[in-house]
Amino acid sequence: MAPTPRRTQVGIIGAGPAGLFLAHLLHRQGIESVIIESRGRAEIEGTIRAGVLEQWTVDLMNGMGLGARMMREAHFHSGITLRFNGESHHIDMEELTGGKRVTVYAQHEVIRDLVAARLEDGGKIRFGVRDVRLLDLDGDTPLIAYRTAEGEEVLLRCDYVAGCDGFHGPSRQAIPASARTEYQKIYPFGWLGILTEAPPSHPELIYARHDRGFALLSTRSPEIQRLYIQCDPQDDIANWSDDRIWAELHTRLETRDGWRLTEGPVFQKGIIAMRSFVCDPMQHGRLFLAGDAAHIVPPTGAKGLNLAVADVLVLSRALAAFYREGRRDLLAGYSATCLRRIWKAERFSWYMTTMLHRNEQETPFEQRIRLADLDYVVHSRAAATALAENYVGLPIE
Amino acid sequence: MAPTPRRTQVGIIGAGPAGLFLAHLLHRQGIESVIIESRGRAEIEGTIRAGVLEQWTVDLMNGMGLGARMMREAHFHSGITLRFNGESHHIDMEELTGGKRVTVYAQHEVIRDLVAARLEDGGKIRFGVRDVRLLDLDGDTPLIAYRTAEGEEVLLRCDYVAGCDGFHGPSRQAIPASARTEYQKIYPFGWLGILTEAPPSHPELIYARHDRGFALLSTRSPEIQRLYIQCDPQDDIANWSDDRIWAELHTRLETRDGWRLTEGPVFQKGIIAMRSFVCDPMQHGRLFLAGDAAHIVPPTGAKGLNLAVADVLVLSRALAAFYREGRRDLLAGYSATCLRRIWKAERFSWYMTTMLHRNEQETPFEQRIRLADLDYVVHSRAAATALAENYVGLPIE
Repeated sequence: MAPTPRRTQVGIIGAGPAGLFLAHLLHRQGIESVIIESRGRAEIEGTIRAGVLEQWTVDLMNGMGLGARMMREAHFHSGITLRFNGESHHIDMEELTGGKRVTVYAQHEVIRDLVAARLEDGGKIRFGVRDVRLLDLDGDTPLIAYRTAEGEEVLLRCDYVAGCDGFHGPSRQAIPASARTEYQKIYPFGWLGILTEAPPSHPELIYARHDRGFALLSTRSPEIQRLYIQCDPQDDIANWSDDRIWAELHTRLETRDGWRLTEGPVFQKGIIAMRSFVCDPMQHGRLFLAGDAAHIVPPTGAKGLNLAVADVLVLSRALAAFYREGRRDLLAGYSATCLRRIWKAERFSWYMTTMLHRNEQETPFEQRIRLADLDYVVHSRAAATALAENYVGLPIE
Repeated sequence: MAPTPRRTQVGIIGAGPAGLFLAHLLHRQGIESVIIESRGRAEIEGTIRAGVLEQWTVDLMNGMGLGARMMREAHFHSGITLRFNGESHHIDMEELTGGKRVTVYAQHEVIRDLVAARLEDGGKIRFGVRDVRLLDLDGDTPLIAYRTAEGEEVLLRCDYVAGCDGFHGPSRQAIPASARTEYQKIYPFGWLGILTEAPPSHPELIYARHDRGFALLSTRSPEIQRLYIQCDPQDDIANWSDDRIWAELHTRLETRDGWRLTEGPVFQKGIIAMRSFVCDPMQHGRLFLAGDAAHIVPPTGAKGLNLAVADVLVLSRALAAFYREGRRDLLAGYSATCLRRIWKAERFSWYMTTMLHRNEQETPFEQRIRLADLDYVVHSRAAATALAENYVGLPIE
């Protein structure tokens, strides 16, 4: 059976934050798009991932009319706490950055809001597609070939393709290896994360450096807490009983001044690896990569989702300039524009990660430098401001 | 012949900045000292070393009545220039730090001023001594044994010994290896430095990162310029003709906007290695280490001399508290008090060094992080302020 031919202006591969924000941004410019996604709607709306939004991401969602539930249900924090040598230091980001806050609103909640609004707008999102292939990227009308959930073979002809399909998706691989440079760092540690039914132990996030390794206290809702401990990325989660996890969390997070962590039933646990990754350039012919397809940060800087949204904001402006005025210069400069800010976010994520983790591969000198970094940042207003302005999000050009 | 017994309150080993400042500071508290120095006066007054003074060091010299010639002859800069990707970025430290400046006044000029003033005050400096040994450091009256320039054997009995004898001096070695931890980083590059008779090419210091390596434009006087290029620390200076050095300096320092380096006859050249080093603790019994005897920084942060002066300022206060009030707590806390600020200076010197040098041992990812560091610091007021406050000198507690 011959494939069904379809046509759209921008074919978007992936219904994560990058793809969904892009579809909404294009729609508001009168540009049509189709999103194809290999997973089902329930899966993308149920997978618990990152949860920190930069201030401009919040402002963008509100400006697009997508922020109502977020403004009701999110947690707004004035800052974070850094904990080391048994002492706590609050970084008041709201005060240091002239009013920008940390918004804790889980990525899957953002996705639920964006999927619902997109479908309500009549937007096209094809869930559960298979065998995605990118064709004719160097020509004027690139193609996305895929098979629908129902088994129908489709050829989607586009003006442009947005590769928003994450680190393991096919889009980046569609750029010839000779036409891209990949920068990577694999960290020699991972995060063991748990979700627990427990009330918040602390109103804001706590980032702790301890001789036994990093720990992070985060939150997802008034009933559900997210907690992490640094571990061997190769370790088997089966080696970690709930009791062992709680013992490490108590040891690494608690302070001499008597603050105590609240326990609850653990209903999810797993180990994630830590990686920094950048693909340069982020474009090839009529393909534009956005989000995790082009770059990965370790989660310590809380940057992942926000970087994805920044990419598609730049891309939507470039596409709008093309469709409205026939300009191609912004599209040509897409990768360079994005990468400059991405490298700063990579720098910040690397800085937070190296400063807060115990790395056995580092020399004793380097380990002391990390402690000096912490001691400096909590006692210098300038250094704390630098940390804060990165955490709440650097400006987008 | 039996050794000549002598007695002083504080025996100071080394007439570098640490030892000379300490003798002056103690004298102003009515505490007597003797400095012994293995080199001759002409040698210590003629060796051209570092040349950047932090603001508080300048203030301290003026407060001690030792700053008259410095205020006439030094160069006062409002900041430094960072140069990379062929572009210049001025960091206006005076504006960023509320008026603190960069003072360029060579270390040997400081030493000349301090030696002259000390001798005028009747202070004792024994030049050209040999065979220095530290004895009975755990007892109540430690001894410094040495042979004078004239061959006389002396036993100097002291209340306290200040080890200000540099990285290679005997003082640190007098602390049992089991009683100290040494932290060290050897950088895989060195600096090839020249002195040239040429007028200044630029009114302030220029720190340049280039694909071919770091370069630094500095100054010593209106007639003498100090220039450095990153090189292999194992390289032989014989491999570097003046022409080759100038070619590298032009390539690494010059900009697209047409700024040109002024050449002149080279009258001194040499290669120095780059090291970070910290000894913890900096004290043992009645011995207190100060300056390079306890810690080394690579010269990129311009911290070496200033750290030495900071140590002896802390030590002089602790000794004054002992002699005036019988208090021993400040002496007991000397090392901890110093090391906290020293580690911040080690951090800053490491940061400046890694950011500005090309390091072939780094991965491409890490090299891009250094460029992102530069791009960030020149475009963020908070980050530039953090750089500036470290460069002009963090507060002394």
